[in-house]
Amino acid sequence: MVQKGILVVVSGFAGAGKGTIMKQLVSEYDNYALSVSATSRNPRPGEVDGVNYFFKSREEFEEMIKNDELIEHAEYVGNYYGTPKAFVEKQLQEGKNVILEIEIQGAMQIKKKFPEALLVFIMPPSAAELKRRLVGRGTETPEVIDMRMKRAIQESEGIENYDFIVVNDVVEDCTKRLNGMIEASRYTPSRQADFINEVRAGLREI
Amino acid sequence: MVQKGILVVVSGFAGAGKGTIMKQLVSEYDNYALSVSATSRNPRPGEVDGVNYFFKSREEFEEMIKNDELIEHAEYVGNYYGTPKAFVEKQLQEGKNVILEIEIQGAMQIKKKFPEALLVFIMPPSAAELKRRLVGRGTETPEVIDMRMKRAIQESEGIENYDFIVVNDVVEDCTKRLNGMIEASRYTPSRQADFINEVRAGLREI
Repeated sequence: MVQKGILVVVSGFAGAGKGTIMKQLVSEYDNYALSVSATSRNPRPGEVDGVNYFFKSREEFEEMIKNDELIEHAEYVGNYYGTPKAFVEKQLQEGKNVILEIEIQGAMQIKKKFPEALLVFIMPPSAAELKRRLVGRGTETPEVIDMRMKRAIQESEGIENYDFIVVNDVVEDCTKRLNGMIEASRYTPSRQADFINEVRAGLREI
Repeated sequence: MVQKGILVVVSGFAGAGKGTIMKQLVSEYDNYALSVSATSRNPRPGEVDGVNYFFKSREEFEEMIKNDELIEHAEYVGNYYGTPKAFVEKQLQEGKNVILEIEIQGAMQIKKKFPEALLVFIMPPSAAELKRRLVGRGTETPEVIDMRMKRAIQESEGIENYDFIVVNDVVEDCTKRLNGMIEASRYTPSRQADFINEVRAGLREI
């Protein structure tokens, strides 16, 4: 029997390197899948349905909300975004760990709905390094950088709600540590409930 | 700065292979130390003070209890046995993970006193395999085997209080998994409180 995969929720400050780590994780290990979001916005040139997003009309999206087909959803500037449950469930059943990048409030909602989700918070090695990375991108105005640093202060208050923190020093090391955390988490009693009950039943029968 | 080690409490059914795994862990990785118990019983031929046990007189042991120098202690057939706090603390401060083999009630006491302790329960791959191992030892009478199986049923009720279960299928794999769990556990928010607070303070200063 294939053991069910783990739903891994990844959060972290902008500039902490979430995207890089998640790409590295998926390319290096074959038992991971990135969750694909659904959205009601129009596809941009080059975007592929089912790869970048599941593209839906507003009506279809609202139907999905009504039918509880989304793990979580939100509306930004007039468009819906959300995580389709069916895709996640299918991957988990096939034994894949599904990675879901989501900010801290969304992560808390998911933990309520899926207590078995693993919550991981990605951090820079230091506050100074975070600022260096944001400045180094060269694409952000000082105002945006300032806003992101302020947001990081707010978000940092919620770190204690996560299961693990991953310090993004060297991407390869950090990906390996993250994989180690997810592997270890397969062996918590709640995730091994079937096995434990099987052994218990066996002990009583002998 | 050396990160403090983790106090790892190992429990499991008699015959699950705790001893073998712990020996393998300590010999394979250099950042582990086995806790040495104190006892008021007399040394047996060949036993070395500070290696097999810390040998104490009854009076010295009672003094240790009074001074809260023991993490836990119990009395069996007229002799005291316990875990000296000083040895454990010293090893932890030096960055070693200290392994403490102890049954389930003792483990719960330690978790109360040291919420940062990691509790690991070692299980056989199946109830049938546990029985095979106990019989295979060839040193136990059928009555003793029966008693151990009954005790395993009782102990199995407490598994959900542990952080991880380790299935002892192949000793090498199992030791590697156990080390992975302990490594991962270094990165829980509560064990990284100093680092998190440092980053938080840094974010406010920038």
